[in-house]
Amino acid sequence: MSTECQIDIALGARSYPIHIGSGLLQQPDLLGPWLGTGVNLIVTDENVGPLYLEHLRVALGDRPVAHLVIPAGEAQKCVAGWQQVHQALVDAGAQRDATVIALGGGVVGDLAGFAAATYMRGVGFVQVPTSLLAQVDSSVGGKTGINLPAGKNLVGAFYQPRGVLIDLATLTTLPGRELRAGLAEVIKYGLIGNLDFVAWLERHVDDLLALDPAALLQAVRVSVEHKAQVVARDETEQGSRALLNLGHTFGHAVEASSGYGEVLHGEAVAMGMVCAASLSAGLGDLTPADVARVEKLIDRAELPTRLPHDSEPEALLRIMALDKKNLAGRLRLVLLERLGDARLRDDVDRSQVLKTLTELRQL
Amino acid sequence: MSTECQIDIALGARSYPIHIGSGLLQQPDLLGPWLGTGVNLIVTDENVGPLYLEHLRVALGDRPVAHLVIPAGEAQKCVAGWQQVHQALVDAGAQRDATVIALGGGVVGDLAGFAAATYMRGVGFVQVPTSLLAQVDSSVGGKTGINLPAGKNLVGAFYQPRGVLIDLATLTTLPGRELRAGLAEVIKYGLIGNLDFVAWLERHVDDLLALDPAALLQAVRVSVEHKAQVVARDETEQGSRALLNLGHTFGHAVEASSGYGEVLHGEAVAMGMVCAASLSAGLGDLTPADVARVEKLIDRAELPTRLPHDSEPEALLRIMALDKKNLAGRLRLVLLERLGDARLRDDVDRSQVLKTLTELRQL
Repeated sequence: MSTECQIDIALGARSYPIHIGSGLLQQPDLLGPWLGTGVNLIVTDENVGPLYLEHLRVALGDRPVAHLVIPAGEAQKCVAGWQQVHQALVDAGAQRDATVIALGGGVVGDLAGFAAATYMRGVGFVQVPTSLLAQVDSSVGGKTGINLPAGKNLVGAFYQPRGVLIDLATLTTLPGRELRAGLAEVIKYGLIGNLDFVAWLERHVDDLLALDPAALLQAVRVSVEHKAQVVARDETEQGSRALLNLGHTFGHAVEASSGYGEVLHGEAVAMGMVCAASLSAGLGDLTPADVARVEKLIDRAELPTRLPHDSEPEALLRIMALDKKNLAGRLRLVLLERLGDARLRDDVDRSQVLKTLTELRQL
Repeated sequence: MSTECQIDIALGARSYPIHIGSGLLQQPDLLGPWLGTGVNLIVTDENVGPLYLEHLRVALGDRPVAHLVIPAGEAQKCVAGWQQVHQALVDAGAQRDATVIALGGGVVGDLAGFAAATYMRGVGFVQVPTSLLAQVDSSVGGKTGINLPAGKNLVGAFYQPRGVLIDLATLTTLPGRELRAGLAEVIKYGLIGNLDFVAWLERHVDDLLALDPAALLQAVRVSVEHKAQVVARDETEQGSRALLNLGHTFGHAVEASSGYGEVLHGEAVAMGMVCAASLSAGLGDLTPADVARVEKLIDRAELPTRLPHDSEPEALLRIMALDKKNLAGRLRLVLLERLGDARLRDDVDRSQVLKTLTELRQL
């Protein structure tokens, strides 16, 4: 069985490769083709920096390198954090030939990517995701951004990296809670488009929790392949890309209402996927047995299947009404037509959504 | 002679038309095709709003419209100003189908455009430039951005509008100093690529200062056509687009060192073009007579031909070293090979630049 693979994101002039394997941070020849002639700014956080910054510096050889270590956590994904990356670029004397390298999870990638997209109207960008969530989702496809008090990812840009280096060995140092949060996005790919993968996950969820290398490679590969296909078809989310947001509209509302960082993104998505499945059953598309199967898989991945007990359905609905997918004032939700098949719907009555939000609150 | 014209920016899926003529703000059918289904946010400033906001609101008919009136001046082109536009979009309940309409000069266009480029990773954008500078330069080609303390336009995005509506009638209310500042960019198009246009300007500069409608239409049309061709060939300034920056590297340094807003952008560009011509003569490319011709045209447009008397050559050079055109630590300057023909050079000795900056300081 192969222990490495490469997946290409086909976007014409903006195409780029994703390398997946164990120990790739030790392979400097992979990064080289993605770097410009100018300074390289590594952006990482206080958790990941002490573990992998030095590895990356070694891999960059004698190229000019500066680095910025930010505090860990979603709170950094804000205007002030973004300005901090710009200032680090100014301090490093960065010109248009500079490259920003994001070394970390989704927060580091989204923040560094948005800074790269906007510094001098765009400099080079490379993703080195070290969390499972970033590896299977946020590092692939060019979504960058920051949060506003009014909502998550309300400000940002579509900006593709020059390449993505996924070193599965970094998952061995990832806190268990973060690993499980990443599994929520892995499960999502099964639910929205691949029933075989759902069945595979049901057989291998314990292997994944135990960090079995072959299982991790398979889960990351299938997830990235799925995302690569969707992004190639719909780079800027005019249509089908929105289906990747199963559970996210509910989830974003939970994250926003509990203060960013309390609930992990993947945990919120897990709750949101149960909401979406339950609402789909309420609309007659899923059976109760389907919903139970979704809940069981999420539960076996040690992820929450209920909304926080102090969540307020009306407040969540108000936040959901500001979701970027909405158009012409209508709530647009990703729901399941059946397990393995998702659809965007804008015809769901708000009272039904409210009912779901109320029923799925933890007692 | 025609009193209106249309010029198309050819950028594939991002192509858009520019309408030029007098009284176009009264023609609602021109704007319609560029608007989305969502809310329209008009961004304007305290000078332009009282004059034209109501015209534009009428032209928008019964579509949903909100507006934001910002203070006038370059100081607004900052992170706080950009956040203010985002907040106005949040307050208006803007979704991805929203459209931001910039009604004003370059500051309003750059700021509103960067907000449109980044709100929800990009909403619709329409330019209604009301200053000569914005009409011939900043509203065309998709450069948006804001200033950092470290430099002008250091943060931004390439983001094309859906269309540009140039109503020449708005020039009748433009302060004379602003009109002249815009003429600097008009003269630039002649110097970098069109010697016939230089000769035309020498014959018609007085007509332009007197707001002769036929002369204005001709000057704006030729300028926009030139820019449209350059942008179509090099949207993100990988090469030839940089030639549009004749006088700008010098000019940006003057603007930054004198505090944004003291010297108008066009005035700084005028000084910068004299610097570039003088330096080109020092390198043996222009004759002293060429330089005198450039100076005379700029002087007849009632624009400054000398750097501020309190400017410090070393300080200007330090700011120039941070210019976005620079690569690999080398200063890159747009210089004139001959009148009507510009070239990007990165082989100019810094001591020669310093000499020019010293010689052209106002006594």
